[in-house]
Amino acid sequence: MKMADIGLIGLAVMGENLVMNMESKGFTVAVYNRTGDKVTNFVEGRAKGKNIIGTYTIEELVSKLEKPRRVMMMVKAGDAVDNLIETLLQHLEPGDIIIDGGNSHFPDTARRTAYVESKGLLYVGCGVSGGEEGALNGPSLMPGGSPAAWPFVKPIFQSICAKVENGDPCCDWVGENGAGHFVKMVHNGIEYGDMQLICEAYHLMRDGLGMTAEEMHKVFAEWNEGELDSYLIEITRDILGYKDEKGETTVDYILDAAGQKGMGKWTVISALDEGVSLTLIGEAVFSRCLSAVKTERVAAAKRFPKSIPAFEGDKEAFIECIRKALYASKIISYAQGYAVMRSAAKTYGWNLNYGGLALMWRGGCIIRSVFLGKIKEAFDKNPELLNLLMDDYFAEVIENLVPAWREVIAYAVKVGIPMPAFSSALNYFDGYTTECLPANLLQAQRDYFGAHTYERTDCPRGQVFHTNWTGKGGSTHSSTYNA
Amino acid sequence: MKMADIGLIGLAVMGENLVMNMESKGFTVAVYNRTGDKVTNFVEGRAKGKNIIGTYTIEELVSKLEKPRRVMMMVKAGDAVDNLIETLLQHLEPGDIIIDGGNSHFPDTARRTAYVESKGLLYVGCGVSGGEEGALNGPSLMPGGSPAAWPFVKPIFQSICAKVENGDPCCDWVGENGAGHFVKMVHNGIEYGDMQLICEAYHLMRDGLGMTAEEMHKVFAEWNEGELDSYLIEITRDILGYKDEKGETTVDYILDAAGQKGMGKWTVISALDEGVSLTLIGEAVFSRCLSAVKTERVAAAKRFPKSIPAFEGDKEAFIECIRKALYASKIISYAQGYAVMRSAAKTYGWNLNYGGLALMWRGGCIIRSVFLGKIKEAFDKNPELLNLLMDDYFAEVIENLVPAWREVIAYAVKVGIPMPAFSSALNYFDGYTTECLPANLLQAQRDYFGAHTYERTDCPRGQVFHTNWTGKGGSTHSSTYNA
Repeated sequence: MKMADIGLIGLAVMGENLVMNMESKGFTVAVYNRTGDKVTNFVEGRAKGKNIIGTYTIEELVSKLEKPRRVMMMVKAGDAVDNLIETLLQHLEPGDIIIDGGNSHFPDTARRTAYVESKGLLYVGCGVSGGEEGALNGPSLMPGGSPAAWPFVKPIFQSICAKVENGDPCCDWVGENGAGHFVKMVHNGIEYGDMQLICEAYHLMRDGLGMTAEEMHKVFAEWNEGELDSYLIEITRDILGYKDEKGETTVDYILDAAGQKGMGKWTVISALDEGVSLTLIGEAVFSRCLSAVKTERVAAAKRFPKSIPAFEGDKEAFIECIRKALYASKIISYAQGYAVMRSAAKTYGWNLNYGGLALMWRGGCIIRSVFLGKIKEAFDKNPELLNLLMDDYFAEVIENLVPAWREVIAYAVKVGIPMPAFSSALNYFDGYTTECLPANLLQAQRDYFGAHTYERTDCPRGQVFHTNWTGKGGSTHSSTYNA
Repeated sequence: MKMADIGLIGLAVMGENLVMNMESKGFTVAVYNRTGDKVTNFVEGRAKGKNIIGTYTIEELVSKLEKPRRVMMMVKAGDAVDNLIETLLQHLEPGDIIIDGGNSHFPDTARRTAYVESKGLLYVGCGVSGGEEGALNGPSLMPGGSPAAWPFVKPIFQSICAKVENGDPCCDWVGENGAGHFVKMVHNGIEYGDMQLICEAYHLMRDGLGMTAEEMHKVFAEWNEGELDSYLIEITRDILGYKDEKGETTVDYILDAAGQKGMGKWTVISALDEGVSLTLIGEAVFSRCLSAVKTERVAAAKRFPKSIPAFEGDKEAFIECIRKALYASKIISYAQGYAVMRSAAKTYGWNLNYGGLALMWRGGCIIRSVFLGKIKEAFDKNPELLNLLMDDYFAEVIENLVPAWREVIAYAVKVGIPMPAFSSALNYFDGYTTECLPANLLQAQRDYFGAHTYERTDCPRGQVFHTNWTGKGGSTHSSTYNA
């Protein structure tokens, strides 16, 4: 039998589907799983008759690979990855390539890249998005790590990945060490934001306008034909239209307690570390936390009963306002996400291609959308763009959305429907476009109690002042004490 | 000369002031600083004629101390603390106590407690709040670490700390290992929130109502007489009333670009780690980040010019609404902060006394306020209180504040003045009191693309379901892949 082009470890759904995808593009794949049963089930089941080689030890797996060997790990992020790398290093040789296709945290990937390179091998940390479906039919792939590995990985990855309308692959080299997993993390953070925005729009229609799932199904179907055309709007349409055998709408029976696996949280922590505002995703993550304390909420709802008034006014027109508010908030979320990536690129020395990233996300992944095409255009036009809002196209778009955006949030505030992500987006917009924020007072407070000093608007930046606010004397220099 | 009761290392403002405070309470203090000049300047200056012993080596410092020796470090958080501990361990003996009064990150304190205890000594990580002024006249002290150290530290700490009206000390034992520094961190996070809320109220009065600093000075003076009576409202009053030699209001010339030193960020990260919503402090931290990109904001303000309409209506009445909205938002911030502490206590095995914490913060520290007395009462009444909002007193208070709160935020949304902290607070309130959030749709989405499964409202908790939403087949089990 022919030697394999690539080896894949970890036959959970994602791993299996990636193997099927690779094989369908003409690659021979050797597979290994810690529990051998899975290998047997796979090669005698879905993989039967295909160019897929089952192996039962790492040694056997490695022996089936063309050189330089490419081994892709699809295992749970964490210690399992480190242990597997150790084992692989015992069997691979210099020049071979280890690929991590799991959701590893980017600092781990940076560390592993350096470690594997120190042994003379190459390492790739690759973000994979698109869920099971994407893995099988074309995921979005975000590879980073050892640049020397890219030529060997590129043919496979650009074959199996999603393609946009003109055939461009949704996969390109992201950058060194942890860059691939970093942008995958931000992708997932943005996914949290997009999902939360859709949920808030749904909440307002459901509880504010008293609409049924069937009615909302039609609204999302319509939205998916316009500017909001995207995978998440599409599946929301499907979910709202889905009925079980008894003819009941399934979504109406699902418990409103959201789970999470940590990528949204990591994204927010990265933003905090970079000191870049990422409020919308922050609110999205915290909204999941709040949803999870269902028992507490039930008790609080009893203590603070609310009756949302019936909507009076033009319902159709208001639904269009909700659509506009959703679109405006979405623009903010991406503006914030891109600002964090720009800052991190500087921090970690990555030369990120922002338009290229939009293209990678344009198809295959969970946040794929028509909208990302516009983002690509914005960054292609000006790769140094500091904030998406300052792109002419988006500036004009958002200006037109602002009145509806304000109307929707003001209504929700009035009737008591929480819209934390919509609100945080508008507050960011209003803050970003405000020349003089109230932070002058905040700096005065810090100087008052901690002698932290301040700058003045009528003096050059960098020149600092301290005021003895109480007139009671005391030291005029800032202490090393952090208040 | 008498041996010293305690040794203090690090003669920056905070350290010096703590020494002066201790000495004024009858303790003899030996002091040491890495640069000897500071020691000399201190003992020949402020400390002259007092029971303060200057020393020029760690060995000398240690030789001047009563046993068991108590050594307090007031140095910059980070490596300096670890290095100092190493040096101290060479000169101290089992039973001696090392105290860190800096702003160390609580995991570091937990690690150091275990390390120092492994050498037979005791360790205390103590949060100190109140700035320079507090250090001198009575700080809020939050000690944690080795419980066996408390009896030896208590007499000094409870002498020098702030006292509330009835004489109760604003210092008590917080808990094991990192507990003291943890609650100090949350204190600082809450401080970020309080400051941001005041800034937003100021912003709305300044730009929404067109008020001068002098006018706002009067408003804050009035607010400080009522429910909002607190140190931060008081210093805001002073700042707004402060004029320089030329008669100009200083705050009007301060640059609106806020700094930060990381405690707010740590607090938000802890909340994310605990999976507990802490949106208000999150928005406060990110607001500082946004304020810092002044150049970008100036450009964006040009691109999106705004004209805030003149306020029409009863100005006095609206100012009272702002006060109510500020108070309601503040209640939320503390409700969130306490929820994070409750969760962390469970995670780290601390037996936190929530009423006692409120008492520690009641005086001396930056967030000291009359309000904290009410929080103490709530937790004294019910130490198991899950959320401050469910306390009868606060529930009734906030119910009365809600209409004004909604009115203020709706107005800000309409005219375009960012109020991210006020908004996040109301959104939390509306979310916490909502029995059915839209997270049912979110769970459906996660199940759709990642087979993450969901629970149903008509089935017991813990029973999970998966729907084959597309009807296109595929695996029904959730993969280990994190989407």
